[in-house]
Amino acid sequence: MNEDLRRERERCTFNPQELTHLLDGGKEKTEERKQREKFFLEDPELKYTTPPEYLSHKEKYEEGLKKACIIFKKVQELQAEGKGGMENFREILGGQLGSAVLKDGNPLTLHYVMFIPTLMGQGTIEQQAHWISRAWNLEIIGTYAQTELGHGTFIRGLETTATYDPKTEEFVLNSPTLTSYKWWPGGLGHSANYAIVVAQLYTNGKCHGIHPFVVQLRDEETHQPLPGIIIGEIGCKLGMNATNNGYLGFKNVRVPREQMLMKNNKVMPDGSYIKAPSSKLTYGTMIFVRVAIVQDAGRYLRKAATIATRYSAVRHQSQIKEGAPEPQIIDFVTQQFKIFPQLASAFAFHFAGSWLWDMYNNVTSELETGKLDRLPELHAIACCLKAVSSADAAKGIEILRLACGGHGYMACSNLPITYGLVTAMETYEGENTVLYLQTARFLVKSWQSAHNGGQLQPTVQYLRDLMKNGNIRFEKNVPWAIQALKKVAYGKIDLAIRHLNERTKKGMEYDYAWNETSLELTVASEAHCRAFIVETFYNLVVEAVKNTSPQLGKVLLDLCDLYAVNTLLRNYGDLLRFAGMSSNDLEVIQTWLEELLKTIRPNAVGIVDGFDIHDDILSSPLGAFDGNVYERLFEEAQKSPLNKVPVNESFAKYLKPLLKSNL
Amino acid sequence: MNEDLRRERERCTFNPQELTHLLDGGKEKTEERKQREKFFLEDPELKYTTPPEYLSHKEKYEEGLKKACIIFKKVQELQAEGKGGMENFREILGGQLGSAVLKDGNPLTLHYVMFIPTLMGQGTIEQQAHWISRAWNLEIIGTYAQTELGHGTFIRGLETTATYDPKTEEFVLNSPTLTSYKWWPGGLGHSANYAIVVAQLYTNGKCHGIHPFVVQLRDEETHQPLPGIIIGEIGCKLGMNATNNGYLGFKNVRVPREQMLMKNNKVMPDGSYIKAPSSKLTYGTMIFVRVAIVQDAGRYLRKAATIATRYSAVRHQSQIKEGAPEPQIIDFVTQQFKIFPQLASAFAFHFAGSWLWDMYNNVTSELETGKLDRLPELHAIACCLKAVSSADAAKGIEILRLACGGHGYMACSNLPITYGLVTAMETYEGENTVLYLQTARFLVKSWQSAHNGGQLQPTVQYLRDLMKNGNIRFEKNVPWAIQALKKVAYGKIDLAIRHLNERTKKGMEYDYAWNETSLELTVASEAHCRAFIVETFYNLVVEAVKNTSPQLGKVLLDLCDLYAVNTLLRNYGDLLRFAGMSSNDLEVIQTWLEELLKTIRPNAVGIVDGFDIHDDILSSPLGAFDGNVYERLFEEAQKSPLNKVPVNESFAKYLKPLLKSNL
Repeated sequence: MNEDLRRERERCTFNPQELTHLLDGGKEKTEERKQREKFFLEDPELKYTTPPEYLSHKEKYEEGLKKACIIFKKVQELQAEGKGGMENFREILGGQLGSAVLKDGNPLTLHYVMFIPTLMGQGTIEQQAHWISRAWNLEIIGTYAQTELGHGTFIRGLETTATYDPKTEEFVLNSPTLTSYKWWPGGLGHSANYAIVVAQLYTNGKCHGIHPFVVQLRDEETHQPLPGIIIGEIGCKLGMNATNNGYLGFKNVRVPREQMLMKNNKVMPDGSYIKAPSSKLTYGTMIFVRVAIVQDAGRYLRKAATIATRYSAVRHQSQIKEGAPEPQIIDFVTQQFKIFPQLASAFAFHFAGSWLWDMYNNVTSELETGKLDRLPELHAIACCLKAVSSADAAKGIEILRLACGGHGYMACSNLPITYGLVTAMETYEGENTVLYLQTARFLVKSWQSAHNGGQLQPTVQYLRDLMKNGNIRFEKNVPWAIQALKKVAYGKIDLAIRHLNERTKKGMEYDYAWNETSLELTVASEAHCRAFIVETFYNLVVEAVKNTSPQLGKVLLDLCDLYAVNTLLRNYGDLLRFAGMSSNDLEVIQTWLEELLKTIRPNAVGIVDGFDIHDDILSSPLGAFDGNVYERLFEEAQKSPLNKVPVNESFAKYLKPLLKSNL
Repeated sequence: MNEDLRRERERCTFNPQELTHLLDGGKEKTEERKQREKFFLEDPELKYTTPPEYLSHKEKYEEGLKKACIIFKKVQELQAEGKGGMENFREILGGQLGSAVLKDGNPLTLHYVMFIPTLMGQGTIEQQAHWISRAWNLEIIGTYAQTELGHGTFIRGLETTATYDPKTEEFVLNSPTLTSYKWWPGGLGHSANYAIVVAQLYTNGKCHGIHPFVVQLRDEETHQPLPGIIIGEIGCKLGMNATNNGYLGFKNVRVPREQMLMKNNKVMPDGSYIKAPSSKLTYGTMIFVRVAIVQDAGRYLRKAATIATRYSAVRHQSQIKEGAPEPQIIDFVTQQFKIFPQLASAFAFHFAGSWLWDMYNNVTSELETGKLDRLPELHAIACCLKAVSSADAAKGIEILRLACGGHGYMACSNLPITYGLVTAMETYEGENTVLYLQTARFLVKSWQSAHNGGQLQPTVQYLRDLMKNGNIRFEKNVPWAIQALKKVAYGKIDLAIRHLNERTKKGMEYDYAWNETSLELTVASEAHCRAFIVETFYNLVVEAVKNTSPQLGKVLLDLCDLYAVNTLLRNYGDLLRFAGMSSNDLEVIQTWLEELLKTIRPNAVGIVDGFDIHDDILSSPLGAFDGNVYERLFEEAQKSPLNKVPVNESFAKYLKPLLKSNL
């Protein structure tokens, strides 16, 4: 083991294993995770012979499909052993483990993640019996085709049509324009043979909006596209190049009436349309995915922070004092400030994610009893948490990559590909700005309730409290920080609403006034979310600390402090403006920050050790547990196919003729 | 042409061509550029048959080397025609044009960019006669090998040794450790056959620090590595995968005494060492590269902003008013706020870059007359400008990419690869944090001069002015903004120095106190730079406007206003804290921002048209001049090798056996 890391581990003040158990949710969960990791990571068929970045796009896909098939086989084995739980699915299809085994994405993931869940959520009992059993048995492979070339965010604008023909009792699917082609669905290109297709339903000459249809795309034996199906992949992307995102057009593709998913709305044989009483029930899956994003954001941040922390402990460079030996770069305060706040964010998203997961479960079980009233709040908080966590994680990973200097730019550092995965989260499942504005709608309504004496849900209760409340006095602790951040959120919401009202009073229509005020609404929504995260982090840490050793408890509280301080300082103008702070208070906070960096410094390696990320998941010469950074970097370079021969054939073909042409 | 773009062009209030000439530096320069573009872009041998992102790493290199050879041939043709000027070299080796012809970088660039310039700067007349003529004639291909696996930033710490052996009058080169291996030099892997190697010089048992040596790496006929040379490429990276960055180790490699570059320091045949009187003269190249980075940062931002602006004018999505047709997304204020500030930044870096270029030329011609006194100022401003422009451009490109939603994530949008090029600038040629701290050293000295009545150079003159000066009254114009930003810079420098002094007064050694205060020093340095950029932008625009049409003048002033306002708002807390602003003033600035977005909106497409970036350089279906976004996206997808056959062979190999195994 590297000498610096050994020393770091000796001076750590707490037991990293205790942290591991806390994050996993208990010792047994840690064991389960390790077994799952062993089961997948030690399978020789799932190891890369050549790192995927060296492969051509076509080879990446083929390697991806091969491994995806092996993974599915292994998932079936686990099911047979009674280990088919959610955790296993989530981890291997979308989580850390999945992204280690298939670094560039899995072309079959949507089968389990979207195809089966949609059948479950929107199919009738008969449809479920037929399709889910086929899908579960892996007789067919499905995907979910909603997004089109011309429409992503605004799904009401989708253009694909499904027109009912009562004569044959079939729907006829068509792509009336180029922009109506399905575009983006994972696995659609060359992998899936079925899809749930979302299309505008027409029956008896009337459009009833978008509905889901099960459509066969390819022959089950030959995999040839069926007649009228125009299909392929959309091409290379910033990341996830093995996911085989596809396009799909329809030319009079006929689908039996039974293949519209009819749990909610129905089309009868004669073409008459029966609307379901409520359609809010389809909300669940969407929110579920956003919960998963908050958790994943934290997990990917842990991974990147582990790499950067260990590298910074091993790397020596430059001088703090002229003539002294080169220090570990983690001793530069500027380096600490790049890394430690990301560590703290990883914890913040962990705790916010588990809070959200609990709320999601509570609300969905309430839903089943017909209680809908916490749904808007869940939706609002999930929207902004998804936006903040994906954006902060993506930015954080880039800060960590840049903190590793040139070596962070190498593909083998695993930081570029991690960024590719995480930045995608900023766009999919609701583009972040759109989501902030969704939360803002809820905040504006809640602000109005607060002022009109209406009911307020827990996460916005502070709008009423602060309405009455005067100034708060600065204190150097997190409870004060939470109050200050709530003051900021209140102030921003208040200001945005004032400007919104000024515009409507001048005669502007509300919708246009909304657009004109949208910059302020967006930042108000973000401020609300940041106050919420600090509060949740703090509350759950205070709770957790009751059951930890004092040593680990101290570390958790330090990280929570750092997260709060960093949140305060990132937009400190807000504190001056809305929370009555002074310039002197800011100096105290700056000192607080500098003290916290110093406090966390000796435990930094211990904290990332506590994340307990398997070397094969880190998959980075910079971040391996043994700290043999340079040996590993050198070994990695030897894997380049270009290094297999001393002289590349292009020398004789191109370079030599050029060099000799001038003699 | 797309109907929306046609309408945008009609409503534009100025003539984009006038802007083109302004940015190019005159009509003739525009013509020259267009000719140069034609000469390279229309060469069928330089076109991509398959987009490079689909190729394997090895194929990317081979394609890169092939094209690099064609480019060098063409450069020689230009030279023969007397067109071998700097502009041509810069544009085709490193600039926009180069990054269009070779999207993934050029494996031979360092030959012209570092190998020849180092020979020119550090070789004796005899050395120049011999090596430059061979290099210029393309008899040999060189690179520049300085950075090692263990050292980048701190070059005094390089470990490669060159030990003089007076018996044979040779230097013996060795790599005493793994970390001493050269790592990163472009073209080193398999392309160059010579390199300037920077090594610690030992003679007569004494180390004299780092010196440059010309070292042959490969046989000129066979390209086989010479004995004792351990060489290869370092592997895949986030971007620039055709640049063939390499590693290099030495085992007793002997180099004749004449191959140490001896324009400055010398080793005599008997091994005695003669030190040059001054070594500041090698500074120039380093600063030159930083000037180029500031200019390139602006150019890449123009490219990304062109893509995002045109796409946002063509894309329709969602609703501003319920029930109304879907608007162009550029009509959402949140979208304008993502795009227009990047347009403004592109101009800011253009003007800051040309100011810096002029200063660089002035200072280097002063240097030749032995006048060194403006060198520290040039160094200080080049450091922070390189840091701010590279960081802002990289962030800006990501904002623009995300503003294009999912389609921005596609490789063919050309935004991911552009980010890959630009984010590298944040690290190479001086890591940004290190550079900020270099500028801070100059600022601290200047602050002390200001307080001690010493001499102050022009860019820090304000430190004295503001020392005496009281508060300033808010006005809604750029000259006020410049004053306010200088107040901020002054306040931050002042605060950092206060904390630095407090630490030393408590007995901390200055070097440690520097490290402890480095967070505040870094932001002080950035604040200084931002005030400088706004001022330079404003001064040069006011100058430029004297010679433009009033219409274009208005646009330039609008963009300058927007840049200033955006700079004010990004850290508005600083204004409250250091520039005596009130919360009410902030509301006025927010309104100013919103007004500016509205003012610029009708000219946005005109402005990017004025950038006049050739479709083949944009190389993006989202950004092409005709706006046929969807048709082009669809065509691009057809270029994927995976789309050549309807059923990929992996179906039969992997997927079918899986699907049939459960029947």
